[in-house]
Amino acid sequence: MKVIADGIHAQMANASWIRKMFEKGLELKKAYGADKVFDFSLGNPDIPPPARIREVVHGLADLAAEPLGLGYCPNAGLPAFREALAGMLSKQQAAPVEAGNVVVTVGAAGALTAFFRAVLEPGDEVLCPAPYFVEYGSYCGHFGGVLKTVPSLPPDFQPDIAGIERAVTEKTRVILINTPNNPAGCVYTQETLEKLAALVERMNAGRERPVYLLSDEPYRFLTYDGVTVPPVLPLTKYAVVLGSFSKNLSLAGERIGFVCTNPALPDVELLVSAVIMTNRTLGFVNAPVLGQRIAMALIGEGVDLSVYDRRRRAMAEVLADAGIRFAMPKGAFYFFPEAPGGNDQAFVDALLAQNILAVPGLGFGYAGHIRLSFSVDERIIRGSAEGFKKAAASLR
Amino acid sequence: MKVIADGIHAQMANASWIRKMFEKGLELKKAYGADKVFDFSLGNPDIPPPARIREVVHGLADLAAEPLGLGYCPNAGLPAFREALAGMLSKQQAAPVEAGNVVVTVGAAGALTAFFRAVLEPGDEVLCPAPYFVEYGSYCGHFGGVLKTVPSLPPDFQPDIAGIERAVTEKTRVILINTPNNPAGCVYTQETLEKLAALVERMNAGRERPVYLLSDEPYRFLTYDGVTVPPVLPLTKYAVVLGSFSKNLSLAGERIGFVCTNPALPDVELLVSAVIMTNRTLGFVNAPVLGQRIAMALIGEGVDLSVYDRRRRAMAEVLADAGIRFAMPKGAFYFFPEAPGGNDQAFVDALLAQNILAVPGLGFGYAGHIRLSFSVDERIIRGSAEGFKKAAASLR
Repeated sequence: MKVIADGIHAQMANASWIRKMFEKGLELKKAYGADKVFDFSLGNPDIPPPARIREVVHGLADLAAEPLGLGYCPNAGLPAFREALAGMLSKQQAAPVEAGNVVVTVGAAGALTAFFRAVLEPGDEVLCPAPYFVEYGSYCGHFGGVLKTVPSLPPDFQPDIAGIERAVTEKTRVILINTPNNPAGCVYTQETLEKLAALVERMNAGRERPVYLLSDEPYRFLTYDGVTVPPVLPLTKYAVVLGSFSKNLSLAGERIGFVCTNPALPDVELLVSAVIMTNRTLGFVNAPVLGQRIAMALIGEGVDLSVYDRRRRAMAEVLADAGIRFAMPKGAFYFFPEAPGGNDQAFVDALLAQNILAVPGLGFGYAGHIRLSFSVDERIIRGSAEGFKKAAASLR
Repeated sequence: MKVIADGIHAQMANASWIRKMFEKGLELKKAYGADKVFDFSLGNPDIPPPARIREVVHGLADLAAEPLGLGYCPNAGLPAFREALAGMLSKQQAAPVEAGNVVVTVGAAGALTAFFRAVLEPGDEVLCPAPYFVEYGSYCGHFGGVLKTVPSLPPDFQPDIAGIERAVTEKTRVILINTPNNPAGCVYTQETLEKLAALVERMNAGRERPVYLLSDEPYRFLTYDGVTVPPVLPLTKYAVVLGSFSKNLSLAGERIGFVCTNPALPDVELLVSAVIMTNRTLGFVNAPVLGQRIAMALIGEGVDLSVYDRRRRAMAEVLADAGIRFAMPKGAFYFFPEAPGGNDQAFVDALLAQNILAVPGLGFGYAGHIRLSFSVDERIIRGSAEGFKKAAASLR
């Protein structure tokens, strides 16, 4: 009996690698004890939110007990939070963002589906550099969108602009980028973004249906070695920015993100209204009220970044000592090293034999590499050194 | 320039009546003062959550400050909450519901879109008695589903089972009901549900793709005059129940709902896995963690129902005194009276002239009636009496 749709059945068969590793991890931890398993498979920020969150939550208790205190809020988000986001984004993006340009969403994931639903016609193409966050395909696929990927090249993984230009068709509706990049750990340079923006401007000359440059930036806060993430809004009026508070405030479970449209876009009010509507009719209705209030209270604060940087250096030592080739991440909390011997799945299996959990690059549309999240305690990183050596040696 | 998709543009032109009245209400309140406007247009529960919510929120402050305290949780919901829901639903539904049958969702709206995405093929039909909650059309329409409605008949608005049976085609995938009903205020009887279940069982004989009886029950807790909501799970293995804590705990802004599948359904694990996946890939990821913990702590409690009953009686007096015909609601917090003269939009306009906000039945696929939410203070209800009399008189 076909209890579910065929397309969904197919997607489940092809279940997320991250999910598979998560389940494998549970098994291993059960068998060997949690302290004997080195789990680099998850991007769940483990640094606590700013300590002030405790007082913020206490401060919300009275509100929660009021009539309508936790009632429906406007579909676009709490007006004061939209104002605060506009202030934050005006600075980050060096553009005059107003509250009316911002829609609060259920995480960056909810921002992506609400935006795709608002702009995609069935058959429209979303162009994306690989490696990429693998859920992107589902996010646009629900509405008939088709993800087309263009490989970026190691070691630096800046997008291949010429390759992207060759992949453009009349059906292209969105160029989707993610900077700092999950899983590659790179930050797109000013030059890269200028070239992408120029491409989008060229594409849009004479088009009735504009192509958007959609920049997914949940890791904007997390860069190293003095690198910063250049803003995309000043580069083209067709730029749209997405973000969240999942990583910088370690609020991933509260699901607070946003869409920020470019005030310079013609008909920007129509685009914003459409996203507000799809945010409602996709069943999000409004981003959760407590989460919105917490993020609003903590806006501008963040977790202790020096912790991530120490972990990054520790992980780099571990990999270098094992003779594994990698680019030092400039942003986010991922390494994307090469698999010794070139086979990422074989490398992941060899690591598993050492109780080390990683995700094969294939899970991000880019074989031959693996993703290692360093959102884990430094002791786990140091403790995995022998395992990495043995696994790498076994493949040479 | 076409900044949004054509289909979305069309939907926006046809924007929700509830939304329009909301905006009209803001205008009127600005012009005349909030206490001079009688707003019956919104279903936002205004009774405070159980007072214990204050201590529950205080109790979550330490968790929020912990590493991973507000991090990602399993896509299906917190395991302890799924267990608690299974216990609650086993009693409510008189069926052996287990945690593995339940998926926590972003409200009942998120439950509907995740379920539709999991089971609908493009072109599949969702049959629904009218009047109905108007967002149902969008919820299935995102994925190529088509809502087909069958009018129920006043005064009692029980579904027209023969009419539903005549509307069945090979494309029918879901029969969607809502009891207690928004906007009709009726509660489906045991006899109604048995007939619907028998119809579904007949339809499924020999079908490879089962037809589901999907029962949306966010108002299950709110009935009057000793009426109860009969459980649907014991009547057919193809029944699926949806619910939320938006109304019974006044937590609408926190977005906590659930899907409950029938343990008796063949391949029920596959259906549950599919809903968990669509819940993830539609961008919900997981229902917000704080809201889950609040609902879990307050499960089994509820707002003071006697307040709703007093309001119901007050509203009934007001309508009767104005000579407006209505069925006394047996559940939820809505009246769905007839428009004097038969034109619901004219009646809504006449009420607006008295600073009374209502939603025309057309907004629920059922002209000739209007919806009045009595989720408002009793003084507002009493204060509207003269206005109802004048508006009704003006149409005779």
